[in-house]
Amino acid sequence: RALELELGSSTQTSHRLLAYSDALLSIIATVMILPVAHTKIHPDQKLGESVQQLLLTKIAVYLMTFLIVTVAWAAHVRLFQVIELIDDVLALLNLACMMIITFLPYTFSLMASFPGVPFGIFLFSVCAVVIGLIQAVIVLYGFYHPHLLNQQIQVSENQNFYKRHILKIILRGPILCFLAAVFSFFFIPLSYVLLGLVIIFPHLSRFITWCKTKILGQRNEEEEYHSLETFSFYLSEPLSKERVEAFSDGVYAIVATLLILDICEDNVPDPREVREKFHGSLLEALSEYGPNYLAYFGSFVTIGLLWFVHHSLFLYVTKATRLMGLLNILSLAFIGGLPLAYQLTSEFAEKSHNEIEAIQVSCVITFFASIFQFAIWTTALLHERETLHPFARYGGKEHAFMFAKLALYPCVSLGAFFLTCLLSEFSTEIFHLMQIVIPFAFLALRIFVRISLTLIKSVMSLSRRKVV
Amino acid sequence: RALELELGSSTQTSHRLLAYSDALLSIIATVMILPVAHTKIHPDQKLGESVQQLLLTKIAVYLMTFLIVTVAWAAHVRLFQVIELIDDVLALLNLACMMIITFLPYTFSLMASFPGVPFGIFLFSVCAVVIGLIQAVIVLYGFYHPHLLNQQIQVSENQNFYKRHILKIILRGPILCFLAAVFSFFFIPLSYVLLGLVIIFPHLSRFITWCKTKILGQRNEEEEYHSLETFSFYLSEPLSKERVEAFSDGVYAIVATLLILDICEDNVPDPREVREKFHGSLLEALSEYGPNYLAYFGSFVTIGLLWFVHHSLFLYVTKATRLMGLLNILSLAFIGGLPLAYQLTSEFAEKSHNEIEAIQVSCVITFFASIFQFAIWTTALLHERETLHPFARYGGKEHAFMFAKLALYPCVSLGAFFLTCLLSEFSTEIFHLMQIVIPFAFLALRIFVRISLTLIKSVMSLSRRKVV
Repeated sequence: RALELELGSSTQTSHRLLAYSDALLSIIATVMILPVAHTKIHPDQKLGESVQQLLLTKIAVYLMTFLIVTVAWAAHVRLFQVIELIDDVLALLNLACMMIITFLPYTFSLMASFPGVPFGIFLFSVCAVVIGLIQAVIVLYGFYHPHLLNQQIQVSENQNFYKRHILKIILRGPILCFLAAVFSFFFIPLSYVLLGLVIIFPHLSRFITWCKTKILGQRNEEEEYHSLETFSFYLSEPLSKERVEAFSDGVYAIVATLLILDICEDNVPDPREVREKFHGSLLEALSEYGPNYLAYFGSFVTIGLLWFVHHSLFLYVTKATRLMGLLNILSLAFIGGLPLAYQLTSEFAEKSHNEIEAIQVSCVITFFASIFQFAIWTTALLHERETLHPFARYGGKEHAFMFAKLALYPCVSLGAFFLTCLLSEFSTEIFHLMQIVIPFAFLALRIFVRISLTLIKSVMSLSRRKVV
Repeated sequence: RALELELGSSTQTSHRLLAYSDALLSIIATVMILPVAHTKIHPDQKLGESVQQLLLTKIAVYLMTFLIVTVAWAAHVRLFQVIELIDDVLALLNLACMMIITFLPYTFSLMASFPGVPFGIFLFSVCAVVIGLIQAVIVLYGFYHPHLLNQQIQVSENQNFYKRHILKIILRGPILCFLAAVFSFFFIPLSYVLLGLVIIFPHLSRFITWCKTKILGQRNEEEEYHSLETFSFYLSEPLSKERVEAFSDGVYAIVATLLILDICEDNVPDPREVREKFHGSLLEALSEYGPNYLAYFGSFVTIGLLWFVHHSLFLYVTKATRLMGLLNILSLAFIGGLPLAYQLTSEFAEKSHNEIEAIQVSCVITFFASIFQFAIWTTALLHERETLHPFARYGGKEHAFMFAKLALYPCVSLGAFFLTCLLSEFSTEIFHLMQIVIPFAFLALRIFVRISLTLIKSVMSLSRRKVV
């Protein structure tokens, strides 16, 4: 260690490196919605069919990329929970790792366009293996310079055990990918199965352990010893709350800005057209885009408020368990779908049949994004002593209000969905106006919760009095 | 204050709100490079002419947006240095403010497409005025609930003075914009002058004050008193270092990911074309894109390393003065131009004349991005006691190494530029290979600095001995 400092290799906190990695990963995960959203749907086609066409290729690419990138992100979080300080070499290695990760979406695009050709899956697997190797080098480098490690591991006598354990976790995915690469030349479906396994493996293995302990009851002692040690490290502090927040912020931010990008590229009229068609009146030309502006503001408000709900929730979350992390990622995957919702509702503003379906797709996306947020909250409530701030627990002063906040979007989107089925007059304009009005609902919510709480209390005391 | 808590309006730290705002603002500032980069240049055209065409409209839009958004960002930073805690109302007001700011790029696109029509400039000014008004409401809300304010202001007796001072700073820009909106119907050039004034006003006013103190010497006492109070608040802690880092990270991250977006949209071959033109061989079809991959990795390495240099620099920066902030923003504006450099070098891979010009444009962009980083460093050295960590000051153990790190990119890009003038054989491939090799230069740098320092020392001691 003295030699290390003598060599002048400046040791640094990893805070900013991690923030930058989170930003990169979240943007990469989300940005693949753009090819989905930009798919031109012919106005004569029915949306139902086209959506099915989309579903099969581009949405699959988007979801696969999103999930794979989040797996890479989770591995990255684990890795830098072990290595707490960095130096220049680690920073450069991490950047190399990021470079390969940002290349993954391209390999997915190839896979989706040529599902029967082994090259796409081969390329992806090679990238995954390279990422795994770089991360393994980072681990080895970290254990070779122990002052970079987490305090708990630094003082542990069992460093080698930790090293093997972490390497196992990090190399698990790449080994599956290596097998996928090999099999891609013989039997492609097996490769796809292996890749699917990479995504669900962490959850699967945890689920199996959970079942095992439930069925077999107590485990033998030696196993207990090992699992205890890993437990204290991997499960009690499963995901750093800060990094979950940073990753989520990145997704919300990029989704909000993708909207304006579309507006800037599609809705600036051509000077020549303005001269010929609208007699030089820019205002008249722009008034054609009225529905798009409405759609933009409506979508932005939705994204902003979903961020706001997420922010309010995580304000009272003290610790994010693995399941909460998974639910958060599912919620984010639907958030990433919002540019598609925007594109659909702004494109089919006045075409009667597609218009309703576009609104329904928007409602479904919003509903799932918000219901998974709600699920994070209910999951947190199950272990409220460990995961929640006292204010947000049952009986805490913010509990009812938090409940109302989280329930608002699922209710509204479900309501809007049923309205589209009932009312034949429902239009995108009404839908977007609804979206824009919701912030005032949030402001009114606190008053509403207060009044209803007082009502409930008075009704209860009234009924109690009657009983007496 | 007790009433406030009684009402249950939950007071929160603003950390995450600010991080999210930074992410949004940095992405919005940078994303407008996309329309520039996506401008199709006809292969027969000379690049020189097209670049001039671009310069006049789209690059102007990009730069204007970037600078205006950074002005809005700086105002936002100031605002939340005053208001340190937030509640739900402030969070929602801030989101509304963000919504209008993200709409600004669209108004710029309109302005650039229709420079002679008053509507574009009118719309922009209206947005700016609305942003100003929302921020003014935030300030008034903050001063109405003093427990949200900065500690220093909370205990100050002169709260009203602060309130007026901050409102003045925040409303300065919007008032100019309001005038611009009014004049846009009479005399458009004046409106543009007024808008230009919005960007340079903060720097101009500071420059004038600086000149005044230099020329007039000591100021009278009353002025001294006021300026001292504002000084302690506005100039000694001019920009929060954290937020400068967050904003910069956002720009670097979005630039790095815009590259892969281009790759995914342009370089996935059409299945039909592969079948007909390449007899079903995907590999053959992809080998056509070889130069693009090279360009991608080269550009990513450049962006990653410029981030790395920025990161290393700010590790030793303890405080960012206003001038350093300005230089940082100029550096980031050029960083934002890198997707254009990527597009040019990957598009003109094998067209002799344009190829050289594309490389030269890339070199110029890289040079300015890195020389402004270097300028931050030299500016910091001027006041090294206040702005730098002891390690990085003159004689500090990291000083020489930091110097070498920051000088590497200006030297390399300048060298590459002159090579393109001298060698007729210089190609984009060589250029990108150069880019990819540079990380190893960074790793070698430490050794190189060490050797050269030892050499200098031994030469000096040798010459001293001779003198003796």
